[in-house]
Amino acid sequence: MPLAGMGFPETPFDAVTAILDVFGVAVFAATGALVASRKEMDIVGFALLGAVTGIGGGTLRDLLLGLPVFWVVTPSYLVICLVVAGLVFFTAHIPFSRYRLLLWFDAAGMALFAVVGAEKAILAGAGPAVAIAMGMITATFGGVIRDVLGAESPVILSPEIYATAALAGAGCFVALDALGVQREVAVGVAVFAGFCVRGLALHLGWTLPRYRPRPGRRPEDLSRK
Amino acid sequence: MPLAGMGFPETPFDAVTAILDVFGVAVFAATGALVASRKEMDIVGFALLGAVTGIGGGTLRDLLLGLPVFWVVTPSYLVICLVVAGLVFFTAHIPFSRYRLLLWFDAAGMALFAVVGAEKAILAGAGPAVAIAMGMITATFGGVIRDVLGAESPVILSPEIYATAALAGAGCFVALDALGVQREVAVGVAVFAGFCVRGLALHLGWTLPRYRPRPGRRPEDLSRK
Amino acid sequence: MPLAGMGFPETPFDAVTAILDVFGVAVFAATGALVASRKEMDIVGFALLGAVTGIGGGTLRDLLLGLPVFWVVTPSYLVICLVVAGLVFFTAHIPFSRYRLLLWFDAAGMALFAVVGAEKAILAGAGPAVAIAMGMITATFGGVIRDVLGAESPVILSPEIYATAALAGAGCFVALDALGVQREVAVGVAVFAGFCVRGLALHLGWTLPRYRPRPGRRPEDLSRK
Repeated sequence: MPLAGMGFPETPFDAVTAILDVFGVAVFAATGALVASRKEMDIVGFALLGAVTGIGGGTLRDLLLGLPVFWVVTPSYLVICLVVAGLVFFTAHIPFSRYRLLLWFDAAGMALFAVVGAEKAILAGAGPAVAIAMGMITATFGGVIRDVLGAESPVILSPEIYATAALAGAGCFVALDALGVQREVAVGVAVFAGFCVRGLALHLGWTLPRYRPRPGRRPEDLSRK
Repeated sequence: MPLAGMGFPETPFDAVTAILDVFGVAVFAATGALVASRKEMDIVGFALLGAVTGIGGGTLRDLLLGLPVFWVVTPSYLVICLVVAGLVFFTAHIPFSRYRLLLWFDAAGMALFAVVGAEKAILAGAGPAVAIAMGMITATFGGVIRDVLGAESPVILSPEIYATAALAGAGCFVALDALGVQREVAVGVAVFAGFCVRGLALHLGWTLPRYRPRPGRRPEDLSRK
Repeated sequence: MPLAGMGFPETPFDAVTAILDVFGVAVFAATGALVASRKEMDIVGFALLGAVTGIGGGTLRDLLLGLPVFWVVTPSYLVICLVVAGLVFFTAHIPFSRYRLLLWFDAAGMALFAVVGAEKAILAGAGPAVAIAMGMITATFGGVIRDVLGAESPVILSPEIYATAALAGAGCFVALDALGVQREVAVGVAVFAGFCVRGLALHLGWTLPRYRPRPGRRPEDLSRK
């Protein structure tokens, strides 16, 4: 049943998936609302950026997999985004660094969504490559829309370890699932792995090597020519 | 029948819905083409911006609801966008303020699409929260694509009353529909409500209060830290 | 069978369509990766920009037509994007002008995708207007996402002959198909036509006339007013 895990828990594991989904939506909605607070938007802007960030990744995943869109089936996800956006609107003035908070919320949401997205793709019958892609899409696409609409530079294209951490989480889950590991364990380990990669990268300032023009290049190739 | 109102009128009300849909598509296509004229694009740019603005919101609504996309079923919507874009290309030089015109056309299209979108969601079986969201998506998403592609700041994230007016129109329709009000009346009242909220906001310069850092904050939180 | 040509060749022609599809995906993935190289991204950025550019247009086409998304059905398309992105990451330092190369790869991918997109729409039962639109969407949407994410100005809205060439290719195919011309011939001629229009435009610097304010306008209309 592809609808399992989409708000209609039928087993304890489906309940866990549903809870993770709710938590992921809530923390991503919070990152969207925090971008709105940094841009000093009104409450409708908070609600819109919160909602597109919270549900954007899962929406694209469901469209690509041909599944009913999760928040159309279960509108409470939408309500969660609005409640979170409202909470941020009225509490974001409390003095502490919103930028750091945004980064850590984002890391938690990213790790959760990467695993939930891969899980849902496998439940829908996808193979490993598509499942990993769906995990990465679920984890990153909401943030991409948030950054495009908020006119920030998309974080997934920066030299930061971001999509790489989503890849680690989704890949870890797919591998453990293929090895027959119990789902609760696979989900827990994979979320932890994705969060650790992102968290360590944040804490230690890790980056992947960027493409750099090599010596052999003629200088005029660097101009836009 | 979810296809009712999608170009196959079966009752007088379906015919009214179809006519509103056509008018909404045409006025949104005009706003897209007017942005193209402000950017001094060629006629293909007019056609592309006109089409994505005219049909973008309804396209996303249909994808999210799992319905066949309206302009794939009824290609005349696409033709309308192209005709309108062509008309604007050849008439936009007539001397008057295109910027004001764009704002009022946009207000009319927004109010129509908010109600048509909510109506179509209800016909497809959605509950009130999803219906209101679909109304807002139908009303605003075409303009979001227009603004992103035209490299303008998205109007829905500005402090203007825009998404709020779409919310008023869609919410009014959903409430009247739930109260059992006759559809023709509900559509008429809701479109009028949405247009008035947007029109008064334009005329009187209304805005919602924006989020502002409160006194208790340390100045360094305002830097990007 | 709408699935024909989607990685399950059943006739020689389907095999040709599938091969063109693969080549189009590969060249578009290369243009995405070349943008990543110009922005000096890391290898994950290469993979992401390569994949969204390679499969973005066909993904939107399949969603709009209500077909299963081609790379979810046939994940090898995704693998092709990743391989191409990796190749570009390790070879793009070879000294020659990547900008010219990008333009000519882009022209080939554009012409192929315009025809493949129109073909797939006709196989799915669409009429001529929708088939031409699907050809243009398949040909241009991946590049639009590439340019929006890479923070470049979208090439389809520039005064260049780009969407116009996609229109020429898709329109030529739809016309030849309607005239009963053999599919292999129609595809070959239409791809050649689209590539020639784009190639000549590149080589000779053709542009369409842009909209320009006419004499009758008052100067204050040019200010944003």
